[in-house]
Amino acid sequence: MRQAKLAIVGGGAAGLTAAIYAAREKLDAVLIDDYPGGQILQASVVDNYPGLPQISGEELGEAFRQHAEDKGAVFLEHRVTGIRREQEHFLLTLDDGVETDILQAESVIYAAGCHHRLLNIKGEQRLTGHGVSYCASCDAAFYPDKTVTVIGGGNTALGDALLLSRIAKTVYLVHRRDTFRASAELVEAVQQAENIRFILNAVPLELCGEKHVTGIRLQRKTDPTEQLLQTDGVFVAVGMEPDTAMVSQLVECDETGYIIAGEEGITSCPGFFAAGDIRTKSLRQVVTAVADGASCVKAAERWLQRKG
Amino acid sequence: MRQAKLAIVGGGAAGLTAAIYAAREKLDAVLIDDYPGGQILQASVVDNYPGLPQISGEELGEAFRQHAEDKGAVFLEHRVTGIRREQEHFLLTLDDGVETDILQAESVIYAAGCHHRLLNIKGEQRLTGHGVSYCASCDAAFYPDKTVTVIGGGNTALGDALLLSRIAKTVYLVHRRDTFRASAELVEAVQQAENIRFILNAVPLELCGEKHVTGIRLQRKTDPTEQLLQTDGVFVAVGMEPDTAMVSQLVECDETGYIIAGEEGITSCPGFFAAGDIRTKSLRQVVTAVADGASCVKAAERWLQRKG
Repeated sequence: MRQAKLAIVGGGAAGLTAAIYAAREKLDAVLIDDYPGGQILQASVVDNYPGLPQISGEELGEAFRQHAEDKGAVFLEHRVTGIRREQEHFLLTLDDGVETDILQAESVIYAAGCHHRLLNIKGEQRLTGHGVSYCASCDAAFYPDKTVTVIGGGNTALGDALLLSRIAKTVYLVHRRDTFRASAELVEAVQQAENIRFILNAVPLELCGEKHVTGIRLQRKTDPTEQLLQTDGVFVAVGMEPDTAMVSQLVECDETGYIIAGEEGITSCPGFFAAGDIRTKSLRQVVTAVADGASCVKAAERWLQRKG
Repeated sequence: MRQAKLAIVGGGAAGLTAAIYAAREKLDAVLIDDYPGGQILQASVVDNYPGLPQISGEELGEAFRQHAEDKGAVFLEHRVTGIRREQEHFLLTLDDGVETDILQAESVIYAAGCHHRLLNIKGEQRLTGHGVSYCASCDAAFYPDKTVTVIGGGNTALGDALLLSRIAKTVYLVHRRDTFRASAELVEAVQQAENIRFILNAVPLELCGEKHVTGIRLQRKTDPTEQLLQTDGVFVAVGMEPDTAMVSQLVECDETGYIIAGEEGITSCPGFFAAGDIRTKSLRQVVTAVADGASCVKAAERWLQRKG
């Protein structure tokens, strides 16, 4: 059985920042991820991490990982398949693909992140990062005077459409119903935007394009024939899913599965801290993830000190 | 009179990130600072901003500024000397050293930062950045197996001493009284650390050293002769002061002068948001400042949308 004072679960921007801070403060910490880097690895270009403009997601993830390694952070390239609390400790089940191991930790920073809910249609996986994006805040700026399409009907989709309407020439908003789940004021703002066009009661069937997305094949409920919508970019905003199934018994989550925690990462479970996209927060970005990683190390440090 | 939808006051990490986000989202924003860059400009080396290890504070500040400029952020190199609310607007008085001007803004992100309280003794200004630091979280890692001195008696000073005790060989804690303002558990932890030595009832008179600090001249209350304490580094932790005098009538502050606001930057004054070191928060670092800058732009955007 391995041991550590602090286990950091997840090697995205939050987890890697936690590893940097923990290493710099000489905490006995270990970061566990079978493929460190996190969601940013999927971004073709990241342009909103201050100081490193126009960097590829892969380079940024690698820069974070390298920074942590240079500071002496300890990495375990395993998957965490279970976490439980036993007396005063946390027991994490690790799996490296061959065999399992147990890590006993005095505290945990859980930074396992989220995944964007997929459309699960043809072309989606292949064109992700090639005109298909799951983050308008990240990628809107790449579409000045272009035609883009947002898919979804919630606050995120409508917020994305509005944001894009200030940058792109035309924004199509494709939604499978004829009413929106988004807030009234957002709906009103979207309706007033001159360059947002609604395509309602429409279900996307396929994302088309060779090396870059060029269109969406749609089925409208009111029309038996299929439609091909030409577009330079597709923003999928049909929701996020936090990776919290493994800890839902351990810690309080909200109704959508996010761990309930403020900016210090303190959760309902003493010694267990939540950092990054996985916690309840209003803005999920690289900048807020790195803040969480640092704040959680401080909170964990205070907790370990009290525990003695 | 100038006009803008959003005025960003202060060009440190928080303000510059707000400018990057606002420019990327095509908000009509302007950043006002007579010398953009903020507190990081004072740091000789910043080693805890993920992805840019071992960068000088000056380079990091410049990288942030350049990033904002490349995105099209508008800068006004003025000092803000007053902010008041008039009907639905904010009126900011600007001063460029020659004449004054008025900026009318619909919303404000206030990111004017803090300054560390100084000892105000000989040698302090000259040796800042040369062994004299105001941030242990930033600079502790530069002192492995060295002798360092923390000056102060509050939570920050004792937390700094503990952090340094895991890295340095010997930590002196110089405090002008014989009791500490810090929490009991912190005091206990510091007393138990083997390599922390107390120098109580002692007032620093001068920081000594040619190009780098080498010692502190002290006066002990119990001893009429002066003492020279040799040290490789000095961490001054005698408190911070937020730059909020100008807005204390506009917005609710806590008893120590920080603007009361959570991670979204929402304050008691509608349309007025607080980002970075100036708001109530538990960890003041570059990473938390950049998060605030981004979050405040989102909050300001929602507010401007509602305002219409």
